[in-house]
Amino acid sequence: MNVLVINSGSSSIKYQLLDMRTETVLCSGAVERIGEETGVLTHKAAPGTEREEKVTLSQPIADHEAGMHLVIDLIVHPERGVVKSLDEIEAIGHRIVQGGDIFNASCVVDDRVVDELTKLIPLGPVHNPGHLAGIRVARHLFPKVPQVTVFDTVFHQTMPPRAYMYALPYELYEELKVRRYGFHGTSHSYVSKEAARFLGKAPEETNLITVHLGNGSSMCAVQGGKSVDTSMGLTPLEGLIMGTRCGDADLAIYPLLGAEKGLSIAEINELTNKQSGFKGICGKNDMRDIHEAVAQGDARARLALDMFGYRNRKYIGSYLAVLGRVDAIVFTAGIGENDPVARELSCRGLEHLGIKLDPERNLAPERGARDISAPQSPVRVLVVPTNEELEIARQTAEVLAPGAKG
Amino acid sequence: MNVLVINSGSSSIKYQLLDMRTETVLCSGAVERIGEETGVLTHKAAPGTEREEKVTLSQPIADHEAGMHLVIDLIVHPERGVVKSLDEIEAIGHRIVQGGDIFNASCVVDDRVVDELTKLIPLGPVHNPGHLAGIRVARHLFPKVPQVTVFDTVFHQTMPPRAYMYALPYELYEELKVRRYGFHGTSHSYVSKEAARFLGKAPEETNLITVHLGNGSSMCAVQGGKSVDTSMGLTPLEGLIMGTRCGDADLAIYPLLGAEKGLSIAEINELTNKQSGFKGICGKNDMRDIHEAVAQGDARARLALDMFGYRNRKYIGSYLAVLGRVDAIVFTAGIGENDPVARELSCRGLEHLGIKLDPERNLAPERGARDISAPQSPVRVLVVPTNEELEIARQTAEVLAPGAKG
Repeated sequence: MNVLVINSGSSSIKYQLLDMRTETVLCSGAVERIGEETGVLTHKAAPGTEREEKVTLSQPIADHEAGMHLVIDLIVHPERGVVKSLDEIEAIGHRIVQGGDIFNASCVVDDRVVDELTKLIPLGPVHNPGHLAGIRVARHLFPKVPQVTVFDTVFHQTMPPRAYMYALPYELYEELKVRRYGFHGTSHSYVSKEAARFLGKAPEETNLITVHLGNGSSMCAVQGGKSVDTSMGLTPLEGLIMGTRCGDADLAIYPLLGAEKGLSIAEINELTNKQSGFKGICGKNDMRDIHEAVAQGDARARLALDMFGYRNRKYIGSYLAVLGRVDAIVFTAGIGENDPVARELSCRGLEHLGIKLDPERNLAPERGARDISAPQSPVRVLVVPTNEELEIARQTAEVLAPGAKG
Repeated sequence: MNVLVINSGSSSIKYQLLDMRTETVLCSGAVERIGEETGVLTHKAAPGTEREEKVTLSQPIADHEAGMHLVIDLIVHPERGVVKSLDEIEAIGHRIVQGGDIFNASCVVDDRVVDELTKLIPLGPVHNPGHLAGIRVARHLFPKVPQVTVFDTVFHQTMPPRAYMYALPYELYEELKVRRYGFHGTSHSYVSKEAARFLGKAPEETNLITVHLGNGSSMCAVQGGKSVDTSMGLTPLEGLIMGTRCGDADLAIYPLLGAEKGLSIAEINELTNKQSGFKGICGKNDMRDIHEAVAQGDARARLALDMFGYRNRKYIGSYLAVLGRVDAIVFTAGIGENDPVARELSCRGLEHLGIKLDPERNLAPERGARDISAPQSPVRVLVVPTNEELEIARQTAEVLAPGAKG
């Protein structure tokens, strides 16, 4: 089965076409700056292979439908296309950030699903409108292809109330469903299964702390293969320090900035999501730039790293308390997979809790799932590359043909 | 030395007169509902002794000065007074909630201190104006008596930047001093010293997690006698679940409640401080009422307790990660000293981290500092009664006569 995975945002469509018999990527790419003066499409056929071919288009792209037409033309292009006709696309999987507590599994798209996603816009105002645009276009252009929604929130729907409820007026939960949802669920789900496999254990017997460190970052307490707590909350703002998001902070910054700077709720929301995190502390939101600045003696970049590691260690401690026995800490995503300094800072001084890195293994420039802990470390420390697109394609295939594979 | 301790709020003055030679309370009380139609003064001479005598007055109390006059009249009353003349009050100690990062020690009140406290009102809008009213009145009525300010924030001024900085734009720290301050410092300082004494260790060799559970609640990571982290933040709102405050929550509840309920910043601030916490979850903010409701099968009260214990366990885990070796968890304040169920919920399932309660010791209706952990528990669990007034009086005496006592 060939599955087209679509991650549609407010002004972008990221996509990947996978052949699920072999779980290989036929092509991948992104349409960006939809609706702006000049749009951009970057496309790779057979990425990561000897036959890799890259195409970049730069032209106005009026809307999501125009963008998707460009993608289709490249996929079935007579010379550089990766399939002969659109009939070879047998399923479409849509990544959805906010599934609320309505969706506790991936599901086939129908009008009811679109209705529910529309109702969820208040809880996912940044992402869900873009997802809906992508679903509308995909249903229009592929009317006969079954489509599946895969939610960032579903993996965390197993959290108990004590973990997902806020100590706010209960009516806000009843009326508006104000609660912790958690995100990056597709990634936490994928790496927790891969980590269990790496450890040679059944997922239901495996307790993990999965640490997704990318531009957005979150941590998840996984008990017997199920999420029991996670650092992101009602939105992806809560929790760890991220590229431009502040993570945890006293809610009272709202009245203070309102009174002293005259800022509105919308302005403070923008400030905490777009101008905070690493960018807020030291002006840089790319970890590589931060390391370079630290090497040049930049005190603020040093502070940003110090705060980042410290916040991560506190979360690891709190999830150790939650989980009891922990088999492994699992680092994943851009920073988690590629940045040994970030991993070392996240584990520093936790030897008394049974977590001990092996400095050489941590520094080794390997790829793939690997163990970077010291031999005597009671808790393993792993690096497991995430693959959200593959997980979405797998879940799409599974929903459409339960139990079958490929 | 007799020290009058004053805790002046926006419409109340709490006070205690202590004889510091013996550290006994000569009298204590509270003026409440200042400026309202009917004010109330409750006063106890020789509280807790056989000679205890209680006075209650109910009458309009126009302002803080009128309230303080009533207090003075009772203190020097010919029959029921506890001192012969006001000359026997040799020092006054004022409790101050927000000392910002300007004050890193208790200090003698002068015009400069009043100026600085006035400048700190933006960071302590709820408390500092009331404190200033109390200081003004006390300086007017006791012009020759030396006065000292003792700050809730000072104990936490030893936190490192990684613990006190938020991942917000750095300019907010430079311009407005937006950072974690922490509160209840007088209590955390007092019980950490008492706990070290109880353990027979020097404070500078003692690592503790002090858990102040009252109507307001906070936790503190104490390393070598110094605060290195605490759960309250910029204001007393952040951290644990409290009587009416929500503690930690996703900042994004502001834009959600703004958009969906049309609430203003001031209204959401009020909601998170006054309508949340236990009261928000189950309608009750007194722990005794909550236990009663749980006994009657109230599911929301059960949820409130479950969330409370869970949040506390997560904080204990995060401070274990921060501290490395921990000598003891120390429970204090109204709930911490008197509620074995709250203590048990806060430690439940933490045996794998070396924390094990002794059920009988925990339930024993004792008072005074005591060890409630199982004999084999690597981390001790203590109950240590707090005494913020005594700590304020001690610090007042120490500032005025360093090294002397009583």
